[in-house]
Amino acid sequence: MSAPTADLLLTGRFVLPMDTKKTVIKDGGAAIGGDTLLAVDTTAELLRRYPQAEVLHEPHGLIMPGLVNVHTHAAMALFRGLADDLPLMQWLQDYIFPVEASLTGELVYQGSLLSICEMIRSGTTSFCDMYLFADEVAQAAAKAGIRAWVGEVLYDFPSPNYGESANGLACTKDLFARWRNHPLITVTVDPHAVYTCSPDLLTELGGMARDEGALYVIHLAENAEEVRICRERYGCTPVEHLEALGLLGPHVVADHCVMLTATEIALLAERGVKVAHCPESNLKLASGIAPVAEMLAAGITVGIGTDGSASNNDVDMFGEMNTAAKIQKFRCMDPTAMSADLTLTAATSGGAKVLGAEACIGSLEPGKKADCIVVDFDQPHLTPVYHPISHLVYAARGADVLHSVINGQVVMRNRELLTIDEKAVLAHAAEIGARFRRLCNGG
Amino acid sequence: MSAPTADLLLTGRFVLPMDTKKTVIKDGGAAIGGDTLLAVDTTAELLRRYPQAEVLHEPHGLIMPGLVNVHTHAAMALFRGLADDLPLMQWLQDYIFPVEASLTGELVYQGSLLSICEMIRSGTTSFCDMYLFADEVAQAAAKAGIRAWVGEVLYDFPSPNYGESANGLACTKDLFARWRNHPLITVTVDPHAVYTCSPDLLTELGGMARDEGALYVIHLAENAEEVRICRERYGCTPVEHLEALGLLGPHVVADHCVMLTATEIALLAERGVKVAHCPESNLKLASGIAPVAEMLAAGITVGIGTDGSASNNDVDMFGEMNTAAKIQKFRCMDPTAMSADLTLTAATSGGAKVLGAEACIGSLEPGKKADCIVVDFDQPHLTPVYHPISHLVYAARGADVLHSVINGQVVMRNRELLTIDEKAVLAHAAEIGARFRRLCNGG
Repeated sequence: MSAPTADLLLTGRFVLPMDTKKTVIKDGGAAIGGDTLLAVDTTAELLRRYPQAEVLHEPHGLIMPGLVNVHTHAAMALFRGLADDLPLMQWLQDYIFPVEASLTGELVYQGSLLSICEMIRSGTTSFCDMYLFADEVAQAAAKAGIRAWVGEVLYDFPSPNYGESANGLACTKDLFARWRNHPLITVTVDPHAVYTCSPDLLTELGGMARDEGALYVIHLAENAEEVRICRERYGCTPVEHLEALGLLGPHVVADHCVMLTATEIALLAERGVKVAHCPESNLKLASGIAPVAEMLAAGITVGIGTDGSASNNDVDMFGEMNTAAKIQKFRCMDPTAMSADLTLTAATSGGAKVLGAEACIGSLEPGKKADCIVVDFDQPHLTPVYHPISHLVYAARGADVLHSVINGQVVMRNRELLTIDEKAVLAHAAEIGARFRRLCNGG
Repeated sequence: MSAPTADLLLTGRFVLPMDTKKTVIKDGGAAIGGDTLLAVDTTAELLRRYPQAEVLHEPHGLIMPGLVNVHTHAAMALFRGLADDLPLMQWLQDYIFPVEASLTGELVYQGSLLSICEMIRSGTTSFCDMYLFADEVAQAAAKAGIRAWVGEVLYDFPSPNYGESANGLACTKDLFARWRNHPLITVTVDPHAVYTCSPDLLTELGGMARDEGALYVIHLAENAEEVRICRERYGCTPVEHLEALGLLGPHVVADHCVMLTATEIALLAERGVKVAHCPESNLKLASGIAPVAEMLAAGITVGIGTDGSASNNDVDMFGEMNTAAKIQKFRCMDPTAMSADLTLTAATSGGAKVLGAEACIGSLEPGKKADCIVVDFDQPHLTPVYHPISHLVYAARGADVLHSVINGQVVMRNRELLTIDEKAVLAHAAEIGARFRRLCNGG
């Protein structure tokens, strides 16, 4: 049997595969055949092995795995900046609830596309999304050619999508049926949180996740108010509540985890629960800073998420890494906490593990899916280069990403999106924004 | 006398003059004649009044005052990412001190140019710099056409620039003589800090600042260690120490101010001291979060600074605003704290007041110097637009700045730097980086 043929070589000044050996290759690249990474090596060696392949060479480029955004609500890009700097309840009741009540599948599709434009432009190649009209989120991702984990948000009250709460399960079952075996889309089971889902609903969804072999994605211990409500209602913390229901396990993706005790950290570690750390949203909503240093020390797998653009207000994972590293140093009063290396790991291979996809994505290793980005180091804020990882975490930003390849497909080349009609998406989003503005003004 | 003629009209979708009336003009612009802003108005009105002027029109652009970076050490761009995630003393002794000991005027000139490239690219039009070889910093700023406040850092030990400590005063006097009446450069008096300057030196420099009518720029209450040393040596806090020496006043720019008591905040307010808030550096070095909400409530003028790129690791004021707003909400456990509006004010007109330059810069008002930037809102992460200020603080980043005008001169057009040979600066910086790498490796 002959070796597989490469279609495309991405080559440049550095390759950072983010493998466990912490390899950094100078003057190297990645060879891609179909949807798969065939090799990571020096440019000379790749050119020798794959003389027929198209070569996308960036003399100042750094080639690395695409970033994995483990928690977002993509369509909320439509609400970015609609209202900020408000107390949580006023923000929700005067702005978010009225506009969300008017949501339709088409609006969610358009909002998701808008956010996906931003994600691809800022180096994200996989995201995990919890929102209404998840089928439309999946359609947007499939159309754009970005890898996505999507779940329909489920709770005890009616949804603008599936109507009565009782229909939520059928809606999710439907999602599984529709997207099974899609190369880019994976369906998840998404109870909103312990304060919006009854124990019965949480348990029933736990069963469904088990039956489907799916991730169980839930907002958990996000802020003091959630803990207070849970204690009042069930006499225990949110983590204790899920444990009592027998729901904690390695397939659980716990979003936020700001309010954790040492005992809870040990418990989450023991159960193999994965954590989606969303530092900027946690700051902006004044929730707090998650004890990431302690979680990592306990052996918990932590990924990084941006949360929705209504509470961040962007989905730029480079900015999120920067914040994640810096606030943890502050929190620990220790400049050595949350090093650039740990942070970049959380945003790549860590994120892949959170999504149970470490065999497929998160690092550039032969046999994995070809999800990679090229970052332009020919810029004042990235010059000189002592340690590429330091620059990626502390100085680079989304706009430095030149090219993006997902599942072997070039989705952005020289900052031009190839799978999305970006002009049309922006025009559409601007119209929708005008409509929401009238809605909030009672007009 | 006829009205002055405009040379250039900057027009676009929004104008945000950052005046006290909080004006937002749709479809408007700014008229520039020589180094001066002549008018801020609707595009139609400007075209009518100044039919001869060149028009730089951006249909999706937002025109606003350039950002004011009130604390940096520009040349430290050369050390960006040389070493991170280390305890402070190891970082200083193993990396920063060895490379700083080898500094020359030429290196500082090149490093400053490198940082200025990044500053202009990310919307900064004025910066306040404290470093060695301040004359070369001033030369770089003058060459690039950026507005700068520069001071030679002074302390009790020998300097690679002026040699023995006793020569520091003469060096600063020389600076004043050299740059007096320069349209862009203002010289400041810069004692490093209370733990590196004797009371005699602090006092002597206080006299010089008074005689010259200059700003007195000093690192103050940056971290717990500074307070500990000051207490040990003088039996009081750094703020109390300066007060006891009679040095606090409206011309003092106090950098950092992380460790302040309520009494000290009241005292700084009473003395009219201005504060340079450097949130990202304070997080990265695990110093803490400055009590900005309390300072603003007490009436203290607060500007925003990036600090040097060795401890940030960039000079992007957009990122700095984002962090400043979010961490203050966390610190106050209140999502309404440090609103986007307060934050943008601190980065523009607040910064101008910190530098005693509110009559000249910080807002777009007729008669002020023409320092303005145009931000490109035609992007997914800035769509739709509900509140332009929210986007500028929470979603925009340096790379969104299209054009920059300083003192009436277009210094960047369509992201091309017009006053600096950027390619040469980057090549030079890369060479210097290679030299420093060998130095740190003992090679």
